[in-house]
Amino acid sequence: MKLEDYFKIKDKALTYFEKADIVLTEKEKRNLEVADFGLGKVEETGLQLITYVNTEKVCAKELVLLPGQTCPEHKHPKRSFDNGKEETFRCRYGKVYLYVEGEETKDRGANPPRGDEAYYTAFKEIVLHPGEQYTIYPNTLHWFQAGSEGSVVSEFSTTSTDEEDIFTDPRIKRIPSIE
Amino acid sequence: MKLEDYFKIKDKALTYFEKADIVLTEKEKRNLEVADFGLGKVEETGLQLITYVNTEKVCAKELVLLPGQTCPEHKHPKRSFDNGKEETFRCRYGKVYLYVEGEETKDRGANPPRGDEAYYTAFKEIVLHPGEQYTIYPNTLHWFQAGSEGSVVSEFSTTSTDEEDIFTDPRIKRIPSIE
Repeated sequence: MKLEDYFKIKDKALTYFEKADIVLTEKEKRNLEVADFGLGKVEETGLQLITYVNTEKVCAKELVLLPGQTCPEHKHPKRSFDNGKEETFRCRYGKVYLYVEGEETKDRGANPPRGDEAYYTAFKEIVLHPGEQYTIYPNTLHWFQAGSEGSVVSEFSTTSTDEEDIFTDPRIKRIPSIE
Repeated sequence: MKLEDYFKIKDKALTYFEKADIVLTEKEKRNLEVADFGLGKVEETGLQLITYVNTEKVCAKELVLLPGQTCPEHKHPKRSFDNGKEETFRCRYGKVYLYVEGEETKDRGANPPRGDEAYYTAFKEIVLHPGEQYTIYPNTLHWFQAGSEGSVVSEFSTTSTDEEDIFTDPRIKRIPSIE
């Protein structure tokens, strides 16, 4: 991501925190993270986030999704210290469409139409409006997308180790690099 | 607490969530907890709370303190499954004065003025304005009080087991009973 794009997206994200009436410190605003997932189309596939706290036990973040923006399919695998990150998403503003790997994951059907097994996972759709939430347990594939107004989402979780997330799309790099 | 007092305090608490622009579901509003700590003076010593999520790993709550209301001194001791609850308080609205047991706990001084050793604990004062936060680690005495406007505080923590909290005042009952 180019530095000028980072600042442009960051400024957009801050307007959504304002719409959601979420108060941030100046330091938090300065350190707002823009994840472009290395795909070079951040307004389509990307995520903006502020990490409030991330201790050895607990993490809390505030996420912004721009209108229609997608955080792509990934899971939080087993780590040296636990079975993987557990996270609860609580919608604060706008609407978020959450897709979570369902129980019926292994059933590919009699005639799978595509070559990549990962895409046969059965997902359930959960629509979160403000005040609604959903908990995703470790090692469960999920992705989410904002509605047309964008979305602000609080995330309550165990310790976050973003660099260990596993994305389905092998081109994705979770940790952003700024030119 | 009498049922009519419960409803009165609950309605007051809901006005603070509105002031903080925090969106709640109808079910969350109905289930809002009023803790009077069994002392019969809930507007002085009490706490109002909504538990968003409380899994085997993570808990998130939204707390309301009425103007000048105090959540009394307590700690979260070692449990069967961990070393005690860890919690981060993030102020969302108003001002909260937080008092946390300091390192110098054991130093009572040469001439302790009072008979009860618990009161010689050295506390540090932390004042939280909106957007500011503080993490309290397990087994650490703390208490907190709202400023004159009241306060709304997000709590991000490990699993909550309120019934295991240890209060310094032996008269306190953490789990409220409603007549």
